[in-house]
Amino acid sequence: MKVIVIGAVAAGSKAAAKLKRLQPNWDVIIYTSDYNVSYSECGLPYYIAGAFKDAQKLIIRTPQDFEKQGVKVHIRHLVSEIHPDKKELLIKNLETDILFTETYDKLIIATGASPFIPNIQGINLQNVFTLRTIEDGISIKNAVLQNKHAVILGCGYIGIELLEAFVKQGISVNVIQSSDVIMSVFDRDLANIIQKYVIQKNLEQVRIINNDTISHIEGKEKVEKIITENDKEIKTDMVVLSAGIKPNIQIAQNAGIEIGKTGAIKVNSKMETNIKDIYACGDCVEKYHIVAEQPCWIPLGSTANKEGRCCAINVSGGHDEFEGVLGSAVTKYFDFTMSMTGLTEKQAIKYGFQPVSVIVRKNDKAGYMPDVESITIKLTADKNTRKILGAQGLGQGDADKRINVLTSALLSKMTIQEFFGNDITYSPPFSTSIDPMLTAAQNLMNKFN
Amino acid sequence: MKVIVIGAVAAGSKAAAKLKRLQPNWDVIIYTSDYNVSYSECGLPYYIAGAFKDAQKLIIRTPQDFEKQGVKVHIRHLVSEIHPDKKELLIKNLETDILFTETYDKLIIATGASPFIPNIQGINLQNVFTLRTIEDGISIKNAVLQNKHAVILGCGYIGIELLEAFVKQGISVNVIQSSDVIMSVFDRDLANIIQKYVIQKNLEQVRIINNDTISHIEGKEKVEKIITENDKEIKTDMVVLSAGIKPNIQIAQNAGIEIGKTGAIKVNSKMETNIKDIYACGDCVEKYHIVAEQPCWIPLGSTANKEGRCCAINVSGGHDEFEGVLGSAVTKYFDFTMSMTGLTEKQAIKYGFQPVSVIVRKNDKAGYMPDVESITIKLTADKNTRKILGAQGLGQGDADKRINVLTSALLSKMTIQEFFGNDITYSPPFSTSIDPMLTAAQNLMNKFN
Repeated sequence: MKVIVIGAVAAGSKAAAKLKRLQPNWDVIIYTSDYNVSYSECGLPYYIAGAFKDAQKLIIRTPQDFEKQGVKVHIRHLVSEIHPDKKELLIKNLETDILFTETYDKLIIATGASPFIPNIQGINLQNVFTLRTIEDGISIKNAVLQNKHAVILGCGYIGIELLEAFVKQGISVNVIQSSDVIMSVFDRDLANIIQKYVIQKNLEQVRIINNDTISHIEGKEKVEKIITENDKEIKTDMVVLSAGIKPNIQIAQNAGIEIGKTGAIKVNSKMETNIKDIYACGDCVEKYHIVAEQPCWIPLGSTANKEGRCCAINVSGGHDEFEGVLGSAVTKYFDFTMSMTGLTEKQAIKYGFQPVSVIVRKNDKAGYMPDVESITIKLTADKNTRKILGAQGLGQGDADKRINVLTSALLSKMTIQEFFGNDITYSPPFSTSIDPMLTAAQNLMNKFN
Repeated sequence: MKVIVIGAVAAGSKAAAKLKRLQPNWDVIIYTSDYNVSYSECGLPYYIAGAFKDAQKLIIRTPQDFEKQGVKVHIRHLVSEIHPDKKELLIKNLETDILFTETYDKLIIATGASPFIPNIQGINLQNVFTLRTIEDGISIKNAVLQNKHAVILGCGYIGIELLEAFVKQGISVNVIQSSDVIMSVFDRDLANIIQKYVIQKNLEQVRIINNDTISHIEGKEKVEKIITENDKEIKTDMVVLSAGIKPNIQIAQNAGIEIGKTGAIKVNSKMETNIKDIYACGDCVEKYHIVAEQPCWIPLGSTANKEGRCCAINVSGGHDEFEGVLGSAVTKYFDFTMSMTGLTEKQAIKYGFQPVSVIVRKNDKAGYMPDVESITIKLTADKNTRKILGAQGLGQGDADKRINVLTSALLSKMTIQEFFGNDITYSPPFSTSIDPMLTAAQNLMNKFN
């Protein structure tokens, strides 16, 4: 049995490694257009920030590691066509430009996602970057170390992590983005708190321009300035595009594989596509949102890892199901944590719920402890069922701990009353005697009475 | 309507304040033998350690705060008898030694717990302490600042917190205890890890003597030395007894109030005792263990707070139920966190389960992050039902966060397979891409297959 895996960052590398362990006698072959396999994309901003020196630390397993295990790895090979009828792939060696075909018995598509690149003048100038691969990370870090000013387009998770990295490396940054507040994945009230913190933290070095975008980029060989749609002219040495990513579905779509309404590859809970013997996993596939009970596309490394594992078990002939995601996510900007799980209020409305929310601001530990910090929690439940829909947690204190308390509650579809019965660990260095999340739950219950 | 509350640290003060808010026209009267009401007992070790200077910071509400709200507070008044037939109390003013009676319409018993004091020679010498009240804390801190050596009897939660405090204040400490490992509330394998850490952390200053206890204490007016049962003679300036606490049930028991099999006052989920119009809450009452589905006595400030609230609602004529506890707890020794929720393996056996456990040791964040630390998690499930029974988490890394992820899962009685579907927040500064608790769940599932 011969299994081809296309792409091998998180999902693909996990699937290949797991499958080879389950079926040591099968041929498992990876093709990737990348220079590397099995690495932590999520760690790239911290490499750029200087948290560690060697980008190779981000690599979990090298092609040589895979070869030792018996998995063949072909880096710098682009799979450009899938022919399900013949169970055949058209592949291009990116180093030699030679095209060749390869057959498979079973296929795993783990093509990931790519940064959204606007079709504007000057986009191909030197020092215009996107961040996805290790090479991207190294290029951006080199540019940061050699320059004084950067423009970041888009300020979601990756944008804000890059902002921290750039500030830490001592360059000044203009953040430009189309929404009217940064981190707009959070509800407006919480995003406002984030934006206020970011502005206050590095007043001199950081400038945030909302409700705008890059119209075009000017320069001879390298970027020299950008012009915004609102006719702002900003001199800069480099531009990073972090205004969203999109799933890499083209070869799947061309092969007749069904694409879900979110625009990513549709799979069932066994990671099977609509075509027999073709599986898909990772950032290129649509996910099922457990709270919304509807499809979603939330591409994350942790999810990709689990999907890769599930995919391998099913490909191997076993049985496993990936139930879906809760939308849990976390990042930080210096000491300020931003985290969420489940649905935000605005997502809840979009999905047809009638959300009721509370916001509490509370100490993260006993008020008399010297390192006490405050956190803000927004907790949301459905008006009709009183089931918890989600929570968002922010602050210099330990916010993500509280958000994670809620994940199992969302998984088991608890009402706010049921959750209030929770027994969360308490001791003065760790919490208030009534945990902030339970205070939020109590306040929310009061809204229902 | 006149409601008397006996005792007012966590549960009693919460009950009184909440009841007065619910029924502003009722007479709500607190009697306590203590000098203070409404304070954080759990914060005392941190006061002794010097985390903050003023012990008054531990006070949440003063008697004056209560008086402003309309709650009468009588400090230094000991309620010595309850006469349910006459709805009358016998009370002694501890300042004047005058005895008097007082009637009630409804009574709330929140008498708390007291340290276990062994009946040994020398126990009444100066510088022999227990830690429960703010005055205890001030006395111990003064003694620590004036002396060079202490003996701590018993090394559970309070013992280890005092050990940290004493070490921080620069005195040397002998810890003596009857079990063969410190922190024996944890399973043996994890307690061994804790003990190893404590010994390595302050090799010179800390000596741990297991399998022994104090036989008697010698000295003229003040402690000069202790003699252990194994005939060790240890010179010391002070002794702190932290070898357990027991619920204060005497006046309740004398009044015919039912005592549960754990030795604490038996209440139903509405905090009612077996006698009409007499309620009880806090450390003096037995709790229901949600995982074990049996009574337990786990006295904690966070639980006391919730019970006080529930009690007030029911006393006021409303309806509320306190469902029980999970046994969640946390403490730390310097940067080493110790936490648990649900049942340990040995508790699980005691309660009649057939526990299956795994232990995983894993990074608490991405391995390339500069502040990565390791944590050890022991996860336990029942062999027959595969339901999760509990977890223990240790280490210099972020262990309690993982333990708290499990609390909602225990509350909803998830199987290990159901829990494995969880979606925990991930980002390199916060976690590994597969969270340590999910790795533990995966390893445990493999044990069942």
